[in-house]
Formats: sequence, C-alpha cells, structure tokens
Amino acid sequence: MEKKDTRSEIIRIGTELIARQGYNATGIEMVLKEAGVPKGSFYHYFKSKEEFGLAVMDVFADYYSQRMTALLQDSGMPPLTRLRTLLEGSLERFSRNQCSKGCLIGNLGQEMADQNERFRARLDEIFADWRCLLAACLQEAKQSGSLRADCECEIMASFILSGWEGAILRAKVMKSPQPLQDFIQILFSQTLS
Amino acid sequence: MEKKDTRSEIIRIGTELIARQGYNATGIEMVLKEAGVPKGSFYHYFKSKEEFGLAVMDVFADYYSQRMTALLQDSGMPPLTRLRTLLEGSLERFSRNQCSKGCLIGNLGQEMADQNERFRARLDEIFADWRCLLAACLQEAKQSGSLRADCECEIMASFILSGWEGAILRAKVMKSPQPLQDFIQILFSQTLS
Repeated sequence: MEKKDTRSEIIRIGTELIARQGYNATGIEMVLKEAGVPKGSFYHYFKSKEEFGLAVMDVFADYYSQRMTALLQDSGMPPLTRLRTLLEGSLERFSRNQCSKGCLIGNLGQEMADQNERFRARLDEIFADWRCLLAACLQEAKQSGSLRADCECEIMASFILSGWEGAILRAKVMKSPQPLQDFIQILFSQTLS
Repeated sequence: MEKKDTRSEIIRIGTELIARQGYNATGIEMVLKEAGVPKGSFYHYFKSKEEFGLAVMDVFADYYSQRMTALLQDSGMPPLTRLRTLLEGSLERFSRNQCSKGCLIGNLGQEMADQNERFRARLDEIFADWRCLLAACLQEAKQSGSLRADCECEIMASFILSGWEGAILRAKVMKSPQPLQDFIQILFSQTLS
C-alpha cells in the first residue's frame, strides 16, 4: 500500500475500534495488527496516540458533515423532510448495526471531555458544526412557512442535536431503536408542528 | 469503621471516580487507596470488580430514583412545575460541578452497553424506571388539563429522557450549561405547550 492508503487504513480500523470500545481501551498495537501494519511504523504516520485520535475524529467529522450537508441542503425536498430523512437514515443504519457503537462523537465526548482538553475542544467544534447545519435547515423551513415564525432556530437546533445524541445513547443501552423512533415521532408531531 | 460504613465509603469514592474517568479506567487499588482501606480487603466487600460496579450503579439508582420520586410526586406543585424544578435543579448542580462528570448512568451506558451484558441490562432497568416516573408525572399533567389530551405520555417521557441525557453530554463537551438551558426552553415553550 502507498503511505496515504496505509494511513487511511489505520484510521478506518481505529474508527471502528474506538467506536466499539472507546479511546482509552484501544491500543495502538491492536489497530496496527488489524491493519496488517508493522508495529514499529505507527510513528511514521502519527506523532502520538493523541494525534491519531484527533485524526480519527477529523476524518469522521468530514465524512459526517458532508453527509449532513448533502441532505440538509437538498433543495429537491422541503426543509423539514430533509431533516426527517437524515434522522430516519441514521435510525436505519443504527438498527442494521444491532444498535451497537452509537455516535463516535457522542461516545468520545462522554469518555474524553473531562480527560483531554484538545479532544474536548475538537469535539465541541464538531457538535457546533452540526448544530449550524441543522439551524440553517430550520431557518429555511421558517422562511418557507413550515415552521412557526417565532422559532429560534439556533436554540431549536441545539435541542434537536441533544435529543438525537441522547436517543442514540438510550437505544444502545436498550438494544432497540425505540428511543430514536420516539424522538422522531414527538419532534415532528409536537415540537416542530 | 464498621463493615457497612467501609462498604459505603468504597462505593462513595468509586462513584466519584467512575463518574469522572469511567469504569474501565478506575482501578480497584485507586478506590481503596482513596478510601484508606487496605488493598487485600476488597474481596471482603465485593466478589469482583464487576460486582462493585453493579453496587455503585444500584446505590446511585436508589438515590436518584428517590430524588425524582420526591419531586415528581410532590402534590404541592402542578405536575409540569415539578418536572421543571427537577430539570432546573439538575442544571444548577451540573453548573456547580464546572459542567464535568455528567450523568453516571449515561456515562456507563455509553462506555459499557456494548461491553458487559449485566451492566447493560441494569442500566436499561434504571433508564426504564426514570422513564416511568416521568410518564406518571406527565399523566397527571394530562389529567389536570395542562398537557394536550392526545399526549402519549410514555413516548413523551422517552423523548424527555433522551433530550436530557443528550443535553448533559453536550454540556460536558461545551463546558457550558447552555444545552441544558436550550433543552428546558424548547421543551416547555414548544413541546409540552
């Protein structure tokens, strides 16, 4: 493999392991072994385990931000339908994964926010980015008249992001997508209507 | 100290350490050292680290369930005011703790749901208990006419529990109580109104 491909492969496997078992429990040796990369070469790609963790977050954040942007700015659908499509897509993928792993950013936030300031600051930026994307979609819904004129879109976006992260956490504990279904039902029938 | 007091003290310190740094990162030796208990005596009180973790959860769940029951069944206040008082009290305590630690049950759910089936099952019971207490309060609000007659209280309770857990997680990452304030604002001005 080329150097770039090897780095990507280490990150791909790291993402999977960190999502499943957390950052602290994920040893570098374990990642390299699964990636089929010689032990000694880790520092060829990353300065430290911390840099590796930050790279895992960056790659995930880029991917997820692109996915959210593509859906939430899709002018082929009304704004609130875009939001619903995003949430229902996440629900479906989560169900396919036997309601395990959850949200990488939520997991790392829970585990690392009090332990590592660089991680916390980066996770904070990622959540803020997601909140902005949600708020812009809500703003469009408001302008098109499908959301109350007095809706404070930034606060509503914060509310939705919290509810979704909490529903994923609860679904992981229940091993059932029910909390995600409950969230979608109340959000669209009561909060946004 | 009596045997019972020593056990309580080990659990108290264990709760603090697990809330701060997670279950896997909390070594038994660390807990005993802070509790001033000789290393060898741990197995006098607990069969294993797993039993210790389950005991920490049980004590926390009992305490929190009592607190919720006292507030949510306080007939001196209208039902929705009880709910608001509960959430605002949590917000205040969380702020006093520099927005750190978060919810012990949410933290353990995030960390352990995919790793330990006994933990997962117990955490699931605790969330279900909280959801029941919330649903009963919402039912009273519905009967007294302060909540829409078509409100499905079980689903609404699930929605509130998810939103609150997610808001605590986000507040820990932001190191700001803002997500909790956002949650309370939208919940009472839009979802429950």
